[in-house]
Amino acid sequence: MQNFEFHNTTKILFGEGKIETLANEIPKDKKVLLAYGGGSIKKNGVYDQAMTALKDHKVIEFSGIEPNPHYDTLMKAVELVKNENVDFILAVGGGSVIDGCKFISAAVHYEGDEPWHIMEKQEKIESALPLGTILTLPATGSESNGNFVVTRGNEKMGYSSQLVFPQFSILDPTVTYSLPEKQTANGVVDAFVHVMEQYLTHPVQARVQDRFAEGLLQTLTEVGPQILKTPEDYDLRANIMWSATLALNTLIGKGVPQDWATHMIGHELTGLFGMDHAQTLAIVLPAVLKERHEKKHDKLIQYAERVWNIQEGSDEEKVNAAIEKTESFFKEMKLSTRLSEENISEDEIPNILKQLEKHGMTELGEDGNVDLAMSERILRRAL
Amino acid sequence: MQNFEFHNTTKILFGEGKIETLANEIPKDKKVLLAYGGGSIKKNGVYDQAMTALKDHKVIEFSGIEPNPHYDTLMKAVELVKNENVDFILAVGGGSVIDGCKFISAAVHYEGDEPWHIMEKQEKIESALPLGTILTLPATGSESNGNFVVTRGNEKMGYSSQLVFPQFSILDPTVTYSLPEKQTANGVVDAFVHVMEQYLTHPVQARVQDRFAEGLLQTLTEVGPQILKTPEDYDLRANIMWSATLALNTLIGKGVPQDWATHMIGHELTGLFGMDHAQTLAIVLPAVLKERHEKKHDKLIQYAERVWNIQEGSDEEKVNAAIEKTESFFKEMKLSTRLSEENISEDEIPNILKQLEKHGMTELGEDGNVDLAMSERILRRAL
Repeated sequence: MQNFEFHNTTKILFGEGKIETLANEIPKDKKVLLAYGGGSIKKNGVYDQAMTALKDHKVIEFSGIEPNPHYDTLMKAVELVKNENVDFILAVGGGSVIDGCKFISAAVHYEGDEPWHIMEKQEKIESALPLGTILTLPATGSESNGNFVVTRGNEKMGYSSQLVFPQFSILDPTVTYSLPEKQTANGVVDAFVHVMEQYLTHPVQARVQDRFAEGLLQTLTEVGPQILKTPEDYDLRANIMWSATLALNTLIGKGVPQDWATHMIGHELTGLFGMDHAQTLAIVLPAVLKERHEKKHDKLIQYAERVWNIQEGSDEEKVNAAIEKTESFFKEMKLSTRLSEENISEDEIPNILKQLEKHGMTELGEDGNVDLAMSERILRRAL
Repeated sequence: MQNFEFHNTTKILFGEGKIETLANEIPKDKKVLLAYGGGSIKKNGVYDQAMTALKDHKVIEFSGIEPNPHYDTLMKAVELVKNENVDFILAVGGGSVIDGCKFISAAVHYEGDEPWHIMEKQEKIESALPLGTILTLPATGSESNGNFVVTRGNEKMGYSSQLVFPQFSILDPTVTYSLPEKQTANGVVDAFVHVMEQYLTHPVQARVQDRFAEGLLQTLTEVGPQILKTPEDYDLRANIMWSATLALNTLIGKGVPQDWATHMIGHELTGLFGMDHAQTLAIVLPAVLKERHEKKHDKLIQYAERVWNIQEGSDEEKVNAAIEKTESFFKEMKLSTRLSEENISEDEIPNILKQLEKHGMTELGEDGNVDLAMSERILRRAL
């Protein structure tokens, strides 16, 4: 096991009815910015529940935080927070809204020329406004970590700080009943691949982390296909919601090598072709596993045996069967697993590689040896 | 899944060499009470490492916190902390030292007549001195939760508060190399039974919690017997240490029913016969599982199949085999699994029941239906 530090300060309030308790989590004298996205929270009742809970607080609103939140949008919120002397940010939405609010909370306290430097120059922040969340889309884990991603023009930059861990996050599975099927499926696959990036590397005798990761993968593969059939099943929704949080609350990745090549290659597919994030992962991950099966051999066998209960056959057969099962799972979640299904041909590969090079993505993977040549082979396997 | 709140604020610093980083975790202007037990930390080098790390801090010492820490001992430390204006407590030791320090940190700020009322009357505390720990014995999980137990005369009382979660805990597996075999084995069994108390009840569709619990049980049963053969194996020690923390850092028990009958009956065996805590658990747990096998049927089957990989046979055969495997595991850890092995005969059962009654332990278990008659049947099964 590798050395590690683990510190997750977010308080989780989980279950039906928990939004009612929101006011207990924010001191009465705080002026709250309620920030959200395109307005689905007005349709599913979450907005009303939050406003009712905060009836004794001063609340102002900021809406319109888009998927892959844009710097210019977020800077409008920063302006508003400063002008209105807001002292608590409540993010109501999915990963994009929460990520955006983390940036807002950091940028409000930023004293340099240009808050974009936080992202671009990875400048260290010294403080941030307190932040809480009501999660409406289980997927990214942003509700219980310090990570956020912000987009400006063609640049999509990530940042991480202990200071922007939400103080609390409310996870009520019933608010996810009304999600479009596509978003539910994407969320399950996103969480699944988050776990795989932290698990499917090489063994380092981190037995607990492995078992926890396998438990999350098993849970997601069990409940994912079921939820598409019975979208208002409380327990299925609850298990997806808690799994997605635990997939990226930093716990399972402590003390182990991490990969993230699938994510980095996937980001370029989103950038070039506007493909959904989870869709990129479902296409790239199987190709990564095939291309890197020798390096990842021991963990692939463990994955085959423990997650998919494949006990028969040679090592090679087990590995192949496990990758096939992974692809089948993505197909069951109604996602494509090949570039061709998304009308992307091999002619595009040079463009994708150019983007990887431009963004410095030339030493990917747990050991840094996914160079451009290997990324090309991965993309060819994904055709 | 049941509704829950989860909030664990302890920062974990895990791995060989982490004690060196101790000074980063305590502000330079703090006056530190370094509290410990019988002095094993002077033999295993932990004391020297801690003092070296704190060379720029003001440090005073308090030693002699005993197993099952006594109120009178702890009150001496409270006096010292007040007289010396200590403002940070560093607990260096196992569960007893950490539990004791949690009480000290609460009692120092207590403004009522008699700090024992915190325990006896379960009075709510409003603040506590900040606390950090260096763990030397993996077992109780106290390094990452808000629980503590204090003894005064014949009374052994527990308390729990968010305010006494350690701010940080340093877990260096190498400091456990020199533990006596008995303490290592007790720690593994203690952690195992902590998981069982939160897992082996009835299913509530908490799939992730079940998988995490099963992962901990599998890890402990794999590494426990091995560590007795190779006590200086870093990875085995690391897995035991991290498992014991995760067994009772409150995560796996969220959203599920919890039992704890084994612990409550076990406490009386410690009280009457001075038996080690883990030894009481190894005797009582198999008897509880046998006596309550109908109520716990579904989870016992799941436990048999997933933790012990028992796939053949009727349900009854699976349940029996799983309980047998559990007993065999305790025996491999060189613990007794019957009262008779500890020279306790059926003549003692009335005394044990009297103590349970005296302490109000008449509605134990996840559904409160372990009354004195059932406790008697459990004890008879344990003979």
